[in-house]
Amino acid sequence: MSTDFVTWRERFERLRANKLFETAVIVIIVFSALLIGAKTYEETSRFQRWLLMLDVAVTIFFLVEILIRMAAERRLRDFFRKGWNVFDFLIVTASLIPMDDSEMVLLARLLRIFRVLRLISMIPELRMLITALFKSIPRMGYVALLMFIIFYIYGAIGSFLFASVDEKLWGNISLAMLTLFQVATFESWATAVLYPAMEHYPYAWIYFLTFIFLNAFVFLNMMIGIVLDVMQKESLAIELESGEGEAAELHGLRDDVHSMRDQLDRMEAALASRHGAPEVDKSGQG
Amino acid sequence: MSTDFVTWRERFERLRANKLFETAVIVIIVFSALLIGAKTYEETSRFQRWLLMLDVAVTIFFLVEILIRMAAERRLRDFFRKGWNVFDFLIVTASLIPMDDSEMVLLARLLRIFRVLRLISMIPELRMLITALFKSIPRMGYVALLMFIIFYIYGAIGSFLFASVDEKLWGNISLAMLTLFQVATFESWATAVLYPAMEHYPYAWIYFLTFIFLNAFVFLNMMIGIVLDVMQKESLAIELESGEGEAAELHGLRDDVHSMRDQLDRMEAALASRHGAPEVDKSGQG
Amino acid sequence: MSTDFVTWRERFERLRANKLFETAVIVIIVFSALLIGAKTYEETSRFQRWLLMLDVAVTIFFLVEILIRMAAERRLRDFFRKGWNVFDFLIVTASLIPMDDSEMVLLARLLRIFRVLRLISMIPELRMLITALFKSIPRMGYVALLMFIIFYIYGAIGSFLFASVDEKLWGNISLAMLTLFQVATFESWATAVLYPAMEHYPYAWIYFLTFIFLNAFVFLNMMIGIVLDVMQKESLAIELESGEGEAAELHGLRDDVHSMRDQLDRMEAALASRHGAPEVDKSGQG
Amino acid sequence: MSTDFVTWRERFERLRANKLFETAVIVIIVFSALLIGAKTYEETSRFQRWLLMLDVAVTIFFLVEILIRMAAERRLRDFFRKGWNVFDFLIVTASLIPMDDSEMVLLARLLRIFRVLRLISMIPELRMLITALFKSIPRMGYVALLMFIIFYIYGAIGSFLFASVDEKLWGNISLAMLTLFQVATFESWATAVLYPAMEHYPYAWIYFLTFIFLNAFVFLNMMIGIVLDVMQKESLAIELESGEGEAAELHGLRDDVHSMRDQLDRMEAALASRHGAPEVDKSGQG
Repeated sequence: MSTDFVTWRERFERLRANKLFETAVIVIIVFSALLIGAKTYEETSRFQRWLLMLDVAVTIFFLVEILIRMAAERRLRDFFRKGWNVFDFLIVTASLIPMDDSEMVLLARLLRIFRVLRLISMIPELRMLITALFKSIPRMGYVALLMFIIFYIYGAIGSFLFASVDEKLWGNISLAMLTLFQVATFESWATAVLYPAMEHYPYAWIYFLTFIFLNAFVFLNMMIGIVLDVMQKESLAIELESGEGEAAELHGLRDDVHSMRDQLDRMEAALASRHGAPEVDKSGQG
Repeated sequence: MSTDFVTWRERFERLRANKLFETAVIVIIVFSALLIGAKTYEETSRFQRWLLMLDVAVTIFFLVEILIRMAAERRLRDFFRKGWNVFDFLIVTASLIPMDDSEMVLLARLLRIFRVLRLISMIPELRMLITALFKSIPRMGYVALLMFIIFYIYGAIGSFLFASVDEKLWGNISLAMLTLFQVATFESWATAVLYPAMEHYPYAWIYFLTFIFLNAFVFLNMMIGIVLDVMQKESLAIELESGEGEAAELHGLRDDVHSMRDQLDRMEAALASRHGAPEVDKSGQG
Repeated sequence: MSTDFVTWRERFERLRANKLFETAVIVIIVFSALLIGAKTYEETSRFQRWLLMLDVAVTIFFLVEILIRMAAERRLRDFFRKGWNVFDFLIVTASLIPMDDSEMVLLARLLRIFRVLRLISMIPELRMLITALFKSIPRMGYVALLMFIIFYIYGAIGSFLFASVDEKLWGNISLAMLTLFQVATFESWATAVLYPAMEHYPYAWIYFLTFIFLNAFVFLNMMIGIVLDVMQKESLAIELESGEGEAAELHGLRDDVHSMRDQLDRMEAALASRHGAPEVDKSGQG
Repeated sequence: MSTDFVTWRERFERLRANKLFETAVIVIIVFSALLIGAKTYEETSRFQRWLLMLDVAVTIFFLVEILIRMAAERRLRDFFRKGWNVFDFLIVTASLIPMDDSEMVLLARLLRIFRVLRLISMIPELRMLITALFKSIPRMGYVALLMFIIFYIYGAIGSFLFASVDEKLWGNISLAMLTLFQVATFESWATAVLYPAMEHYPYAWIYFLTFIFLNAFVFLNMMIGIVLDVMQKESLAIELESGEGEAAELHGLRDDVHSMRDQLDRMEAALASRHGAPEVDKSGQG
């Protein structure tokens, strides 16, 4: 490795760790987000040219920034070891793909939107939040599966029963499940879904009420379950931590007392042997 | 019991415990669910024949599977002892009932839908979730009764007051309770229920607001009550568990100290008697 | 007090404590509720006569029941000391007031509905639930006041700003507060309230979003506050309870150790004086 | 400082601390609130004159009250040190600004509404509630930022995809974010937003369902996170408090036991040296 290279690497490393540089990156990310937002407004052709130029500038800045961060690592492999670096790299390279023809312009724009997500990888608190969110996924997985089974069964029943009532809402199982999701969010569930169904099937309310109660019941239990689950772990950890110190203290105390008893035994024996004292019955001492 | 029979039973037992067999059953359940879903779409007659054949195949597979699981038990009675086995048995046999005439076709389809529920009995985590749900029912029972009383009283009042306003919403106590449930879910409660009522009874908002607040109040208290109830039990269990060890330690320590005091008493007495020491007043020792 | 009277009192007391009698009362209450419900349906004149007769029978039964419960007390004053007895007495006497003329028939019916509430005073679990609900009122009082201040201020602002937009929704402060309550429940808040207002005041969304966030924020904090408040008390109680035993144990242990030290001091002094041992420097012992 | 001045200051101090004076201020605040409310109703010209006079009276009362509270302080600077005093001062002075011309009348009215907020600064419980609310802001800050990022990205995507479907809902990123907020509150999200979009993009439900789930997921995690965060701190505080006493007790006990061991060592040594006892091997004692 040439000395020049090392010097450059160190320079990049210092630059990467620089607070000003970090702030600049965050400012550019926010600016890039505003640029995307600005594109959603009606644009005059002159303004549009400006936006295009700024967009190119932002893209180049991001490219340079990620190259600096890569150059700052001792080995390129180290850069790709951190998940957030891979995340940044994918976002930056995705927005580099040239998409000029008008049909792909939508996709190009979407790829540029995701640059806003770099805000998450730049701010440690948001990164922690996202990590915490990912950790809670497995806990919710089986409840989600149970919910899906409920939706599927009610969806199938609904599409058999109410397909004749409203083809658009209950035409097939996918439409029925979407309608049930609408019911689960309570959006127009009575006026637009329940009452039309009740005109044909007066007992349709049983279907809807059992669905709503089942959903609410599972959801409530999930909420309570998660809160208790996490809490139990936390309180156990606290208990162990604070208990550890006390238990050690108690254990040490007991050891001390035991060694004192041994010493007393020795002293009593010494006293007895010296003075010819009749051996006291010590069987009760345990 | 013939040796042949035992060999077969053991073979079935091994098959039942086989991971591959379990996975196959789960795959077939999911496939059966997709089959039911497919039936809700518009079908061409050729596709329909295929669906029918697949349905028969799935039904036979489930029948064979449950027979294997029954044959794997030492006694048939053991099979029916587990609630989930009875659950599976009922679902499988229900889908066996031949229902050819067109009027019963809906019922036959509904019975086939419930085969999706076998997913719950096959996946241990879902089984645990369902068990936990059932355990929480009694806790919610009395709150549900209280809620029902509130709905009943408001339903009766509503049907007396507002029957003239909107016969469809307030015609009798059942309709009124359904309307109140709609109000409780906040669905069009103001635009479709409150405002029409207020045109005739300007003070109708008192009825609706007290109902909403009462409901929210009872619901909130129920939520808090359940969380605290479960939590208290958990923390008590943790407390007891961790306290047990410490209490035992403390108790042992105290026993040690007591036996040491007895020993010291003996030693002091020995010292005193040997040397004719004047008895020290020990009244303060307690 | 004549012996006859005492005998009768005891008979009534036994009757009151009789499980069968209690069940009968609950059955009659439920029956009375069903009677009220039945009245909300279209009635044929013959059925109506039956209902009237049954209603009279129920009223008489309740009267007799409350008289028995009063007669079962040693002194009438004792009966009125329990809140739930007063509650029952008021409900029963209220339904006795004869209201024949057609204008008062609605009030008479309403008074009869409240007999369903006797279910609460009859079932101990419901009584406990209600007591718990009443206890949680003061905790929620100040939050309710804060919410009212928010509603009042936003109501006044809203009626100044939007009265010209929709007289029915924002005509005066009471209407505006009702509209805000509708917004707080998210019912048609965007389509029927926000968008019409935004046509005149493009920045109206600031008013609505700040209101919704403020409400959600206060509500969320209230929920968390209540849960933590109750929890803290519970865990403190558990802590104290389990801590008490341990603390007493520790205290006793320390007393034992102290008395042992006194004994050792005496023994050491005895040893030293007998044998003329040079006094050991004990200043470090504390 | 002249004696007269001191006497007056003391008089004002006593007046300020007077319970009757405090109650009078609260009554006047409520009365001022009612006055503002009354203004939102249709007014006859005579009634209007009365309202104006009362308003002037209230304004003067508030001015006098704040002057008394300022005069009651030893130094004027002390008055402005308390945040709530500054809050009161700003509200009172703001309503003093004369705004006669008809265009500013709305602003004048708005400034007068904020006098209701003085209820918060007068009632200690509300003051505590507000302080608690402010404390919870930082905890919610980063989650709010995360939510905003989600809204921004979905807003940009939505305005690119659905601008052609409904210009009013998806015209630009601000409108799209407002529409998304409407979706997040479940208000007509399916009937007015999802279904029109699905007519052009049949897969639009993916956009809406991921948005709703993402929102619900982040919100749920935030709720749980906050509850656990606060709870952990509380339980740690309780643990420390109750643990402190016990730990001190244990520590003292251990010191006692150690000094006893030292004493025993001395006694054993004394016994041995006096009687020429062979030194017992004490290496195992630790």
